[in-house]
Amino acid sequence: MKLLEDKIAKDGTVLPGNVLKVDNFLNHQVDTKLMDEVGKEFARLFKDEGVTKVVTVESSGIAPAMMAALHLGVPMIFARKHKSLTLTDNLYTASVYSYTKQVSNDISVDKRFLDSNDKILIIDDFLANGQAVSGLLEIAKVANVDVAGIGIVIEKSFQKGREMIEEAGVRLESLARIASLDDEKVEFVKD
Amino acid sequence: MKLLEDKIAKDGTVLPGNVLKVDNFLNHQVDTKLMDEVGKEFARLFKDEGVTKVVTVESSGIAPAMMAALHLGVPMIFARKHKSLTLTDNLYTASVYSYTKQVSNDISVDKRFLDSNDKILIIDDFLANGQAVSGLLEIAKVANVDVAGIGIVIEKSFQKGREMIEEAGVRLESLARIASLDDEKVEFVKD
Repeated sequence: MKLLEDKIAKDGTVLPGNVLKVDNFLNHQVDTKLMDEVGKEFARLFKDEGVTKVVTVESSGIAPAMMAALHLGVPMIFARKHKSLTLTDNLYTASVYSYTKQVSNDISVDKRFLDSNDKILIIDDFLANGQAVSGLLEIAKVANVDVAGIGIVIEKSFQKGREMIEEAGVRLESLARIASLDDEKVEFVKD
Repeated sequence: MKLLEDKIAKDGTVLPGNVLKVDNFLNHQVDTKLMDEVGKEFARLFKDEGVTKVVTVESSGIAPAMMAALHLGVPMIFARKHKSLTLTDNLYTASVYSYTKQVSNDISVDKRFLDSNDKILIIDDFLANGQAVSGLLEIAKVANVDVAGIGIVIEKSFQKGREMIEEAGVRLESLARIASLDDEKVEFVKD
């Protein structure tokens, strides 16, 4: 998505350790017009898949998931993150490891909101090692829902998330794919 | 807002302890069409106030804040919640007490995103005792930004948040105002 790549090139900042800082338009301050276009693009890509719900993880996934779901005309669910719970009878849960924070947290979705008639589109702001997506795929499996695909705003293609998703046989659409952040420069994957 | 009141009456559940559960359309699963209407209504109410940014707190405020900001044509910022930090040089922070969880957390906004030319609209999903709003008002004061007003999706009018905001002299617009949840029934404030 050219609009998004241009925005990343112009306003993104590369920090040491392969960190791409985009908190000025994606995950702290949000460029709402851009997010609307992001949502439209996800809707265009997945419009023929029979998506019944869009699912993401709080908090940074909510804005793009909201816009994708609005343009698809379906509800959006954001999985909650929390420390491991003892009472989980009414929840689908999965454990998600954060490489950045080096801790595991549970994510959960209330069982009332997913059933075997659902076909979900998973949306997230970033794909790096694929831990959050992996947790949502685990929840989808236990809930017995179909997965139409995964939509990512920014993919770090040099990390292993894409490989994991391809191995799982799930369709992946990333609106911007970053080949490298070496020398503090953003290099996109060539089409 | 009739559409919202009807939705609360139909799909909200009252739990003991004056808890209104609306996780099926507002703060876990989100009715995206309703949220679009909520955003339009906030934009209509505040369109003449010169709002430059919409500010909320993660996570449940993000969806209504996103839609309000989109319809106002401005960026949206979601303050981050976290344990108290030691390094806060680049952040505006405030402490927010949660009556539900009985803990205090800090909320923060990066200093790059607010300056004295800004006029913000504060949006949140719920207003009860006004702790989150109070934290955002504190940040606005330290950042020296004007506050155009506060937009709330559901106000529990029997708790003290409204009084606090009125005492602060800030305009408050709540799309649904709940007078009472006694006997596990939702009673709205009469116009």
